[in-house]
Amino acid sequence: MSTPRKIILDCDPGHDDAVAILLAHGNPQIELLAVTTVVGNQTLEKVTDNALVVGTIAGITGVPFAAGCARPLVREIENAPEVHGESGMDGPAQPASRIVLDERHAVDLIIELIMSHEPGEITLVPTGALTNIALAVRREPRIVERVREVVLMGGGYHTGNWSAVAEFNIKIDPEAAHIVFNEKWPVVMVGLDLTHQALATKEVVQRIEKVGTGPAKFVRELMDFFAQAYLDHQGFDAPPVHDPCAVAYVIDPTVVRTLRAPVSVELRGELTLGMTVADLRAPAAEDCHTSVAVDLDHERFWDLVVDSLERIGEVDLTA
Amino acid sequence: MSTPRKIILDCDPGHDDAVAILLAHGNPQIELLAVTTVVGNQTLEKVTDNALVVGTIAGITGVPFAAGCARPLVREIENAPEVHGESGMDGPAQPASRIVLDERHAVDLIIELIMSHEPGEITLVPTGALTNIALAVRREPRIVERVREVVLMGGGYHTGNWSAVAEFNIKIDPEAAHIVFNEKWPVVMVGLDLTHQALATKEVVQRIEKVGTGPAKFVRELMDFFAQAYLDHQGFDAPPVHDPCAVAYVIDPTVVRTLRAPVSVELRGELTLGMTVADLRAPAAEDCHTSVAVDLDHERFWDLVVDSLERIGEVDLTA
Amino acid sequence: MSTPRKIILDCDPGHDDAVAILLAHGNPQIELLAVTTVVGNQTLEKVTDNALVVGTIAGITGVPFAAGCARPLVREIENAPEVHGESGMDGPAQPASRIVLDERHAVDLIIELIMSHEPGEITLVPTGALTNIALAVRREPRIVERVREVVLMGGGYHTGNWSAVAEFNIKIDPEAAHIVFNEKWPVVMVGLDLTHQALATKEVVQRIEKVGTGPAKFVRELMDFFAQAYLDHQGFDAPPVHDPCAVAYVIDPTVVRTLRAPVSVELRGELTLGMTVADLRAPAAEDCHTSVAVDLDHERFWDLVVDSLERIGEVDLTA
Amino acid sequence: MSTPRKIILDCDPGHDDAVAILLAHGNPQIELLAVTTVVGNQTLEKVTDNALVVGTIAGITGVPFAAGCARPLVREIENAPEVHGESGMDGPAQPASRIVLDERHAVDLIIELIMSHEPGEITLVPTGALTNIALAVRREPRIVERVREVVLMGGGYHTGNWSAVAEFNIKIDPEAAHIVFNEKWPVVMVGLDLTHQALATKEVVQRIEKVGTGPAKFVRELMDFFAQAYLDHQGFDAPPVHDPCAVAYVIDPTVVRTLRAPVSVELRGELTLGMTVADLRAPAAEDCHTSVAVDLDHERFWDLVVDSLERIGEVDLTA
Ligand SMILES: [Ca+2]
Ligand SMILES: [Ca+2]
Ligand SMILES: [Ca+2]
Ligand SMILES: [Ca+2]
Repeated sequence: MSTPRKIILDCDPGHDDAVAILLAHGNPQIELLAVTTVVGNQTLEKVTDNALVVGTIAGITGVPFAAGCARPLVREIENAPEVHGESGMDGPAQPASRIVLDERHAVDLIIELIMSHEPGEITLVPTGALTNIALAVRREPRIVERVREVVLMGGGYHTGNWSAVAEFNIKIDPEAAHIVFNEKWPVVMVGLDLTHQALATKEVVQRIEKVGTGPAKFVRELMDFFAQAYLDHQGFDAPPVHDPCAVAYVIDPTVVRTLRAPVSVELRGELTLGMTVADLRAPAAEDCHTSVAVDLDHERFWDLVVDSLERIGEVDLTA
Repeated sequence: MSTPRKIILDCDPGHDDAVAILLAHGNPQIELLAVTTVVGNQTLEKVTDNALVVGTIAGITGVPFAAGCARPLVREIENAPEVHGESGMDGPAQPASRIVLDERHAVDLIIELIMSHEPGEITLVPTGALTNIALAVRREPRIVERVREVVLMGGGYHTGNWSAVAEFNIKIDPEAAHIVFNEKWPVVMVGLDLTHQALATKEVVQRIEKVGTGPAKFVRELMDFFAQAYLDHQGFDAPPVHDPCAVAYVIDPTVVRTLRAPVSVELRGELTLGMTVADLRAPAAEDCHTSVAVDLDHERFWDLVVDSLERIGEVDLTA
Repeated sequence: MSTPRKIILDCDPGHDDAVAILLAHGNPQIELLAVTTVVGNQTLEKVTDNALVVGTIAGITGVPFAAGCARPLVREIENAPEVHGESGMDGPAQPASRIVLDERHAVDLIIELIMSHEPGEITLVPTGALTNIALAVRREPRIVERVREVVLMGGGYHTGNWSAVAEFNIKIDPEAAHIVFNEKWPVVMVGLDLTHQALATKEVVQRIEKVGTGPAKFVRELMDFFAQAYLDHQGFDAPPVHDPCAVAYVIDPTVVRTLRAPVSVELRGELTLGMTVADLRAPAAEDCHTSVAVDLDHERFWDLVVDSLERIGEVDLTA
Repeated sequence: MSTPRKIILDCDPGHDDAVAILLAHGNPQIELLAVTTVVGNQTLEKVTDNALVVGTIAGITGVPFAAGCARPLVREIENAPEVHGESGMDGPAQPASRIVLDERHAVDLIIELIMSHEPGEITLVPTGALTNIALAVRREPRIVERVREVVLMGGGYHTGNWSAVAEFNIKIDPEAAHIVFNEKWPVVMVGLDLTHQALATKEVVQRIEKVGTGPAKFVRELMDFFAQAYLDHQGFDAPPVHDPCAVAYVIDPTVVRTLRAPVSVELRGELTLGMTVADLRAPAAEDCHTSVAVDLDHERFWDLVVDSLERIGEVDLTA
């Protein structure tokens, strides 16, 4: 087994962000350096509370949780209560958090961690809008050459959900996305084309349920709400669980097949604002630093999630 | 056999436009009312000359050929010599035309034909930029309710060629395309997703060659040039023969599977200008008047082309 | 006295369009070849009816009145009932029209007149959106070199009314305006910077009233409504009577001081859509074919209007 | 005499930025808390060096100088060597700097100063692109309610220099400008309409020369270069000395007449990108927090500059 990958998980929980946190925490190949939050699925306050709750349920200790940007770089705030409910993580009962929020701003914490680690050590895993990452890179441009890669959930080359051709995380802060995609670090876009393969089917939910622990029960209840929301609003038979796919790729890149292709973010379009435009017409140039996720190994992906839940085991919330 | 479909073929020959003209002329299910030309693959003058040459080679008589717009509605002229050569139809030797150009402007002719036929009789088949059609509909809005349907080659819902996400015919006059897609007539978009299935493979070219006539030889020589251009500039093993797919759909809609979906043209995007944005997220609304071509029956499509060439037979160019 | 200037007045009456028609008809330096109409202040049907009414009141005979485009080139229809009322010419009682609408489409009539006159004979005077002119020039590009000049009411280099920086005629069909400003004919933009100097002050209205004829009474009643609308909606003490300024410039260019400057129309801006961007930073290049109206001789302008009313005299509406 | 106004001068020296620093330093009504730099007239490195040089020449001590952003928020870097030369402050000989650059990033310093002072104490005076200010406000939104006002040099309501209708500071980072203009702090836009009145005429330059000190000689030599650049590239008889106008307004608001009006920044326009669109059509609403500078008292403005130079007196660069 290789050295665990150090990651900063920048998220907006969010049902699928919650699963991403649990997957990252439970998997031995991941060393979670920090969980940072950003406005998105709900307000910054709500998604930060949710992150603390998930951390509590997962029994995470010794990892800083820090809040970041409360609004996108240029555009007005857009949230997604129709997908994630009023709390941003509707469904399961939420215990009191036992994690104390770090006092640092997420942007400062991200910069601090990257600059204090060796180049190539840290992987950024954003599973929300890219506001924090964009702000960090503008405030401290030297992080670009120190980050190992950016593995983000967002966008899509042939699929949209927040418009016909744009995905939520990118569309709500397209300028931030533009900044992140244009910096010369390796960027792996785990977009909707991939994550719409990560369906929490009935069989999957049964496997999770069978783990039988508190955290597993929490995930199952998240999935119940998520399934209903996706059925009602987007006509899905089973909900796509986007965010853990990015974590899974960091754990084991063979679970997610990717394709190198130049990707740019449309900032002006009337129908296409926030589209991640991938040019798939020809093989990518040698110096192309972006790639897009294409195929998911559905079975092995869910194996990883179930395995993490099993490793986390039972967590004593009263301790 | 049903009554032949009356069509106006509005084109910019163009190698594949030439095949479209031959397919329309040779097939008994099509009654060709007019061939009109528009700037695109080359200048208006060149594509008009080419249309007359193709008409001559096909032995077309009694059908008006009329020239239309020499430039797009709003944007500057863009041609495609890298695909179609300096003449717009490079490759075969071109005989002197024996067809005299109609004196009417294509826009006037289109309006005249539609208004003098019964509602529902005429199908428009544009296989170039939509400039003529857009101008006609703005000059005489009543044509909208009289046209049976518009079956156009252009656009694409997941495929681009003139940019990562836009197709040539639409991108060179996006405002015209916007006008055509927004009018409430039935529009069938036979886009790149479909036409990239219409490959002139070696086997196909051999079938054409075996017809053994002058027109067939002409098509084979067109395909030779086209194959080389597509190999050199876009890395295709065999060239996609776009335009006759629209004619084939009119002849027999079962050759081309379509899907109803709302389609709009992006007019502002920096990376997405001229993209035909199809919203495939949900089933189309009842009143959706646009559809996109999805699957081609490759064999039956080429059967139709070969059949047309056989029916046209030998043409005496010296008569 | 020099040879009268032949003009086609393309308008959307409209209170100030009405005054423009009367000024053109009454002034001996103008030969009115046609009055054509275009959607704008109100629907095409209403502005066309209004044009016929004004022609009747002015006693115009032997001049074709033709209806043109019922909608802008690319954008949706916008009218201005808050400025011109529900009829488009609210205020005075409107007599039955005694002019029969020409059967030709305005675009065809414009082309026909220009192509049948000598080059340099006809001046186009558009005082509405530029839809008809744009369509004409795309349908028959040769009109560009045959038109003497285009003297249009629209735009402004430092002044807006339909947005902070855009004027109504241009903003409701910016693509048409783009087409007209980009063709290489001489274009004189009589914009808001100029026409906001053409105020119908109380003194002016008194001069008009003193003419004492039916047409003068009609104008005074138009001004009464217009004054109230401009007071209520834009806070003007006296209404700016835009459209006759363009006619006045044709009659006597010394009444309107102009400045040569390149002018382009913004088609993409979010806050600036339809702005006529004039570059005043440096003297215009030798081949600059556009100029902008800067200063109005208020007294001599209104002298021309009053003089036209006096020359028109009384008109027998019962004949 | 009232309490001095505490300001942070965020600049990109730049000839006129240099004069702004000297004016702020010499005037007893200003307490200079920090000088921060931002990419603009030249690279961040060059403008930072220039700021240190100006601080040295002015004999500034005890004031932190800190470097900020090396590139705009979203767009690529644009500099202005044609106006300010290769160094960004061409003309006079530049002594070695005796000021040591603060280690803090300008954005952090700005936040720190504002958060550690009482609300309402600090005025921000940006005379370059607004990148640092925008980043500060996104990183620490609470500064908005603590800043007294933002008095910025940039934009223009009827005047452009970096395009027909946009000014350099705004156009090179329009998204940053958008952020600053949209926050609800009071913003005074000292734009080109005003600063083109701040001409360094021959008479002005003679007055500066007569001060007879090293700093005055430095300013005169700056003005010599600036005059030539403005003559060569923009046809000005005397150069407009933009940036000190913003400082002058803070010193004495009666030197600059302003008008309250809503101002927004155009982010999408093709011809109008970065235009500061002021809506002057009607009196501003009660809660309008932006105003634009309209008239300069030329004499009193230059009195302030000369007075500052006299107060600064001779500076020993060898000490
Ligand atoms: Ca998320
Ligand atoms: Ca074609
Ligand atoms: Ca009008
Ligand atoms: Ca500056």
